Amino acid sequence: MTVASTHSHHGYITDKEKYLLRLKRIEGQARGVHKMVDDEKYCIDILTQISALTSALEAVAVGLLEDHLRHCVVDAARLSDDAAEEKIREATQAIARLVR
Amino acid sequence: MTVASTHSHHGYITDKEKYLLRLKRIEGQARGVHKMVDDEKYCIDILTQISALTSALEAVAVGLLEDHLRHCVVDAARLSDDAAEEKIREATQAIARLVR
Amino acid sequence: MTVASTHSHHGYITDKEKYLLRLKRIEGQARGVHKMVDDEKYCIDILTQISALTSALEAVAVGLLEDHLRHCVVDAARLSDDAAEEKIREATQAIARLVR
Amino acid sequence: MTVASTHSHHGYITDKEKYLLRLKRIEGQARGVHKMVDDEKYCIDILTQISALTSALEAVAVGLLEDHLRHCVVDAARLSDDAAEEKIREATQAIARLVR
Repeated sequence: MTVASTHSHHGYITDKEKYLLRLKRIEGQARGVHKMVDDEKYCIDILTQISALTSALEAVAVGLLEDHLRHCVVDAARLSDDAAEEKIREATQAIARLVR
Repeated sequence: MTVASTHSHHGYITDKEKYLLRLKRIEGQARGVHKMVDDEKYCIDILTQISALTSALEAVAVGLLEDHLRHCVVDAARLSDDAAEEKIREATQAIARLVR
Repeated sequence: MTVASTHSHHGYITDKEKYLLRLKRIEGQARGVHKMVDDEKYCIDILTQISALTSALEAVAVGLLEDHLRHCVVDAARLSDDAAEEKIREATQAIARLVR
Repeated sequence: MTVASTHSHHGYITDKEKYLLRLKRIEGQARGVHKMVDDEKYCIDILTQISALTSALEAVAVGLLEDHLRHCVVDAARLSDDAAEEKIREATQAIARLVR
């Protein structure tokens, strides 16, 4: 993170620290699910944790997508029709993968 | 895991090692998403990774649910109507959370 | 419906009238979305209706699945291991399609 | 539709006829699910139809969203930061409802 200013060619993330915290928590949740399976916890309780983890990931994805629309797509729209079209096609494919 | 035989009151998981491996990989994917955000990788690439991670989690959840139906629900069905009803209600709530 | 008693080889649905009502409402919602597009209503409002329609369909699916577990899977469990295994595999595939 | 040019304050839909056809088919699918329940068809077959219907609806939603980004969001981006911000917030909420 200390070198972000030197290599950040995609400085689109509105509040990077917030995302890093949420992703740290998600990593912890994934580790927790692994431990629950290893300890052979009750299946329904493991499924509840997986649902929570999936929701947390989807919330991060929607947040990142919002930042992407706010920066990359808006910038492209101001640059040219072709640039906008390319970004919108790409964003739509990402949305389709999230929606499934 | 070596003590599974002593504490495993929920020995319903057909192939525990397979799940533990998949969950280890999922942990690694979560760590990878964290690093991508920290490195400010391209947003769409991060979203692709999150979609893959969510799909991997859903596959684990469906697998665990199948094991749960195969063991807990079948056992309950053979025990009594009331036991079956309780397990089915519980499983349905877990399915509803996964489907959303 | 009047002939249900003569041909109903799958009388597993706990409250058929409730499902038929909900599905009538879903048909109406689908017709409403068609009209919104034809009238060129605001895109976001159409998307809100599609989300509501999808949720209504998922609720019907989860309800039908619960009825299926309660009847077909429980009956199969009491019949034999093989019968249970076949029904559980089939139910799991249906769940996987719903969860995606 | 013939009067679209007079009342169409939201002429954002790239290929309206395509959407109307797809939504007609979706209406037919909804009617088909109703009939399957009324005829007490096999539960798993009904669930397969509901999954297909849900996927068809999601595909329409993603298509409409793409059109919305292409027209409303791009136009707003070219108008002002505030206009862009408002449209992006609105689009993100619609995406969050679709992703859930």
